[in-house]
Amino acid sequence: MPKMLEPGDYIIGVDVGGTKLMAVVYDHKFNPVGRSRKHTKTGKKEPVEHRLIRVIREALEESKVDAVKGIGVGSPGPLNPDTGVIIDTPNLDWKDFPLADTLSNEFGVPVAVDNDVNLGTYGEWKFGEAQDCRNLVGIFPGTGIGGGIIIEGRLYRGFTGAAGEVGHMTVQPGGPYCGCGKRGCLEAVASRIAIAAEVAKLAARGDAPSVLADCGTDIGKIRSGAIAKAVAAGETMVEGVVRHAAYQVGIAVANLINVLSPEAVVLGGGLVEAMPDLYLGEVRQAVKDHAMPFLRKDVRIIPAQLADDATVKGAAAYMAEVLAGA
Amino acid sequence: MPKMLEPGDYIIGVDVGGTKLMAVVYDHKFNPVGRSRKHTKTGKKEPVEHRLIRVIREALEESKVDAVKGIGVGSPGPLNPDTGVIIDTPNLDWKDFPLADTLSNEFGVPVAVDNDVNLGTYGEWKFGEAQDCRNLVGIFPGTGIGGGIIIEGRLYRGFTGAAGEVGHMTVQPGGPYCGCGKRGCLEAVASRIAIAAEVAKLAARGDAPSVLADCGTDIGKIRSGAIAKAVAAGETMVEGVVRHAAYQVGIAVANLINVLSPEAVVLGGGLVEAMPDLYLGEVRQAVKDHAMPFLRKDVRIIPAQLADDATVKGAAAYMAEVLAGA
Repeated sequence: MPKMLEPGDYIIGVDVGGTKLMAVVYDHKFNPVGRSRKHTKTGKKEPVEHRLIRVIREALEESKVDAVKGIGVGSPGPLNPDTGVIIDTPNLDWKDFPLADTLSNEFGVPVAVDNDVNLGTYGEWKFGEAQDCRNLVGIFPGTGIGGGIIIEGRLYRGFTGAAGEVGHMTVQPGGPYCGCGKRGCLEAVASRIAIAAEVAKLAARGDAPSVLADCGTDIGKIRSGAIAKAVAAGETMVEGVVRHAAYQVGIAVANLINVLSPEAVVLGGGLVEAMPDLYLGEVRQAVKDHAMPFLRKDVRIIPAQLADDATVKGAAAYMAEVLAGA
Repeated sequence: MPKMLEPGDYIIGVDVGGTKLMAVVYDHKFNPVGRSRKHTKTGKKEPVEHRLIRVIREALEESKVDAVKGIGVGSPGPLNPDTGVIIDTPNLDWKDFPLADTLSNEFGVPVAVDNDVNLGTYGEWKFGEAQDCRNLVGIFPGTGIGGGIIIEGRLYRGFTGAAGEVGHMTVQPGGPYCGCGKRGCLEAVASRIAIAAEVAKLAARGDAPSVLADCGTDIGKIRSGAIAKAVAAGETMVEGVVRHAAYQVGIAVANLINVLSPEAVVLGGGLVEAMPDLYLGEVRQAVKDHAMPFLRKDVRIIPAQLADDATVKGAAAYMAEVLAGA
């Protein structure tokens, strides 16, 4: 655990997601002392950044803390971690948007911005089961599929600052369209949205009655909990869809093991949390089938520990390290 | 260029390949002063290591150099770069074979061993067009498809020491068998062997007359030069096979760009050397089609400069750096 803060110091972690905005105020030991969370609601009258500022204010109010040392923010990318500018995130209507400056002007403290999944991986690395690793890959299948990479004990960003786009690895050339405009990305075949679309077809055909009863056939409503409930109810075709998607993620994990030879791979996100044994079982099987024996034999494939707090806590810890000049 | 050697110092670079063994004696400025090369001829009476020792002796004899500072060796992996033990390389009949100790005992000098493609990438990085890069990927499609990675200005080996197995990324689940025993590896669908197998079918059907005339239908004889000759002769189906394979390699390059965000990707090996414009054209197209715009826009995709000397020269430079304690 980072020890850059003194007693009485507070720091805020923020997670800007495609579906939720979250802010948590942490004390110097990274215990949460206030938090707030809202749906993102893009495309509405209020710009996302105004809504985000309200979320941060509410977390501060709940914490009853007067002053914080800084705000660490995890945001979808691509973005420039040096300037805190979001380059292009259609989901949030942000293009060349100065997120760090906007929040810094509003709250009068330093703001550090990095990719949400990088900071989620960073959080799992600093506080979760993989604290001893020097080389770690984090993968978070959700609405999209994000990845973060720790190499030789440091968050890896690459030449552009935007490395780790695991979800946009092409796994099925000519396959279904992805949100990025390409076809056949891992995200297009294995995200929660991709699973929901296939499960919606099952529901429409009568092959997923619990999903049909709870969510209808609207893929926006078929979320991880409903999918897990259908699997638990013995809806075998739903289970097959989830297993297939998890196996595809597992092939990508195998390919990352072949290339990067990490000590551990951390998997998080709603699907993994809702069905950890089933999901990690498929990933481990795919790794056995597709990674080189020598490279995979000692790799730990582990579930994330921090759940929804991975990015906020990672963002706060990262901000603390930036302040400490680490 | 590394400057670890004094005038009068000499160093040997060795490349152990599936098809050839090569040794070059370099002076302190990395100019070659003696060299030797033989076919590998595995499965014959003479063990590969005896043949390798003869190759090194012949290079030394040609150089008329009495003493060298060390021997750097690039070998297929997996291997342990710390101990110089080759873990398992069926192509060379080596299993838990102490290559560094064997050569060190024979020649009485320090020996450093690393993966042949790592050292080929290292050679291109130290002496080729990518000297200014901090993050670089090297890919060498040949009999197999090897990869090397430079991250933050250092050769990257990962947790096991064997990172960079680009050729064993699964690109076609359930696809053709690979030499590693898995199915659908990049190497299984796009190596020179994979191309030769498809071209042999064309030759057998009368669709590749120049190949049939020069090589018959033996895939062992259908080498890069013959393939390039058929393409130049307008044998369009042969060209299609090469383009398809190069495009598959390009998808893997795109995926590596998505994950690692390097400044440059160097492509080498016999196929690239024989048809650089055609090959790199397909790779660049695949990168355009499959890498994220922000990550690919400034990436240089460049041909290797050192040809067959990449690994020997990289191995010598790496040995020099090890001696210098770098």
